Amino acid sequence: MSASERPSEDSLIARFFAPIAGEGALGLKDDAACLTPKPGHDLVLTTDALVERVHFLPEDAPGSIARKALGVNVSDLAAKGAEPAGFLLSLALPDGWTEGWLADFAAGLGEASRDFVCPLLGGDTVKARGPLTLSVTAVGQVPTSRMVQRTTAQVGDLICVTGTIGDGALGLKLRSAPAWSEVLSPDERAHLADRYLHPQPRHRLAAALRNHVSAAMDVSDGLAGDLAKMMKASGVTAIVEADQVPLSAAAARAIQESPDLLDLALTGGDDYEILCTVPEKSLDRFRQEADSIGIPLSVIGRVVSGDGRPVFRMNGLERRYDVGSYQHF
Amino acid sequence: MSASERPSEDSLIARFFAPIAGEGALGLKDDAACLTPKPGHDLVLTTDALVERVHFLPEDAPGSIARKALGVNVSDLAAKGAEPAGFLLSLALPDGWTEGWLADFAAGLGEASRDFVCPLLGGDTVKARGPLTLSVTAVGQVPTSRMVQRTTAQVGDLICVTGTIGDGALGLKLRSAPAWSEVLSPDERAHLADRYLHPQPRHRLAAALRNHVSAAMDVSDGLAGDLAKMMKASGVTAIVEADQVPLSAAAARAIQESPDLLDLALTGGDDYEILCTVPEKSLDRFRQEADSIGIPLSVIGRVVSGDGRPVFRMNGLERRYDVGSYQHF
Repeated sequence: MSASERPSEDSLIARFFAPIAGEGALGLKDDAACLTPKPGHDLVLTTDALVERVHFLPEDAPGSIARKALGVNVSDLAAKGAEPAGFLLSLALPDGWTEGWLADFAAGLGEASRDFVCPLLGGDTVKARGPLTLSVTAVGQVPTSRMVQRTTAQVGDLICVTGTIGDGALGLKLRSAPAWSEVLSPDERAHLADRYLHPQPRHRLAAALRNHVSAAMDVSDGLAGDLAKMMKASGVTAIVEADQVPLSAAAARAIQESPDLLDLALTGGDDYEILCTVPEKSLDRFRQEADSIGIPLSVIGRVVSGDGRPVFRMNGLERRYDVGSYQHF
Repeated sequence: MSASERPSEDSLIARFFAPIAGEGALGLKDDAACLTPKPGHDLVLTTDALVERVHFLPEDAPGSIARKALGVNVSDLAAKGAEPAGFLLSLALPDGWTEGWLADFAAGLGEASRDFVCPLLGGDTVKARGPLTLSVTAVGQVPTSRMVQRTTAQVGDLICVTGTIGDGALGLKLRSAPAWSEVLSPDERAHLADRYLHPQPRHRLAAALRNHVSAAMDVSDGLAGDLAKMMKASGVTAIVEADQVPLSAAAARAIQESPDLLDLALTGGDDYEILCTVPEKSLDRFRQEADSIGIPLSVIGRVVSGDGRPVFRMNGLERRYDVGSYQHF
C-alpha cells in the first residue's frame, strides 16, 4: 500500500481502537481521556515499553504482542495491590505495517483488555523507520495509602511466589530448538512457549496482596535479580530454598535433562508472577484467599537481616547470583 | 562504550531521573507511582509519542527534545482545562546513545517539568535498534465533570486562538534555508526556529478555559485541520477571517515576501496554541482572565451550522482546505 493510500490516523482509531475503548475514552474522539477516581482511592501508575527483538519476536502473532504489552503492565498494577482502571497505548508502527496486522493487534488487545478488566482509555499512533515499539501506561486504583510497596519487607517475613518460575525464560530458549527440548512432550513445549508469549497477570490477587503482604513486586526480570532488588530496597536480604521454588512439570523435566537450566529458571525473565513477603502470622489467611481464586502460592524462603545479595540454598551449597536480573543496557 | 561497560537501568534512573522526580514517584524505586487525586476532581490522561525525523531532528539538542515531548502533552492537558499532576516517560534509546546525551536530556526534562509544574512520576527506558522514540503520558486534574471537550462547540460561538499561528511550521521550513528566509532578521529567524523547537504549552490558561469556553483543543496538526476536526466532532462548521489569524512579526514578514506561506501557516503543525469556541457573552471575561496572565487571545471567526469543512475568507475569496491537518500515515 503506498503512503497516499494509507488511511488517516483518525480512521485507524475509529475502525480498530474505538470499538475496544472504555467509557472514559470518550469514543477516542477527544485529545484526552477522563477518569473519575473512586472516592477514597489513590491512583497507581506504571509504564512499560516493549521493543521488537528485545521483548518479543517479529514472527509473534500481533494479538500476542498486544496481550503481552498490556499484560506486563497489569502485572505491575497487581503487584501493587491495585485494581486496573484503564490504559493508554503508544504505538510506533514500522514501515511496511499492514491493516491486517493492525486489525489482529487490536483484536488481541481488546480480548486482553476484557480478560484483565482494564479498558482502553486513549493512545497515540505514529510511524517510525525502526522496529515496532509499543508503550503502555496502565492506571490502577487502591484504597488511599494502601499501595503495596517494594521497600517494606521485614526481617522474619516469609518469601512467597505465585504460580511457577522459569517457564517464560525456558519458553524463549525453546525457540532455538536446544537439545534438551527433545525430551519434552509436545504439550510441555507448548506450555513453555505459551508462558513466554502470554503472561498471565495476577490482577485477581490484588486485594489479597493489600490485605496480607508486607511488600511485593512482579517477577519480570528474573526471580534472583528481582528478589535482590526488593531486599535491597527494603534494607534486608533473604535466604531461599531453591528446591522450594515452584516449577512446572515442563520446566522440571527440562532441568532434569539439563541441570544448568536451573540457573536460567532462577535468573531468566518473563515470569510475571508475584513475588511477595508475608508476615508468618498472615500466611494462612493469605493462602486461603489465593486458593479461593485458584492462584497457587509457594513459600520459598525467608527475609533475614543483612545487606548482601540473597542466598539460594541448593544441594547443600549456598549460591549468590551476581547478576541475577536481566539488564537492558 | 561497549555494552558490558554500560550502566544498569537502575543506575541510570538513580543518576539522571530520580533527582527530577516528584513526590508520587516514590524515588522511582518502585514498579509504579502513587498519586492521591484531589477530592472532587477527575483525572485527565493523554499520551503523545515523538519519533526522531518525524517530530524532531537528530541534531536537535537533547534538552529541547525532552522539553518538546513533555510540552506537547501538557498542551493537551491545558486544552482540556486540566492542571498538570505529573507524567510518565517511556524512552527507547537507539544504539550509540551516550551518557552525556542522557544527562542533557534529563536536565532539559527537569527544567521543563518545573516550568510546566508537571512532576516526573515514573517511566521505562529500553534500548532499541531504531530511531530515538519517546512516549509521554501526562496526567492532569479538573474539578469533577469540568473537562473541556472538543465536541461541544455551539452555533454562534466565537472562535479564538491564543498566541500566534504558523511559527512552528515556518520554523521547521527555515531549516532548509529557503529564499524567503533571507529577508528575515536574525531575531526573526531565531523566533521561528525557537517556536518549532520549544512549544509553550498554555497550562496557565486551564482555569479560564474551564470557566468560559464551550469547546477547546490544542493546535498541534495545523489550524485548518484541527479546526475542521473540532467542528466535525461538534456537528457544526465555521467561517474564519484569515486576516484575523494572529501572526508573529517574523511570520508576517515571511508571508509578505512569499505569499504562498500563508497556506503553510494555516495548515502546518507544531503551534501548540489553544483553539477554542467562546459564547459571545463570555468573551470579555475570558479575555480579561487571559490578559491578566499575559496570554494573547484573538477572535478569528465564528461557529455556523452546516457540515462541510470550515471556510477561510481571504481577499474577498472563500477557501476550504481539503487536507488541512498533518497526516501521520
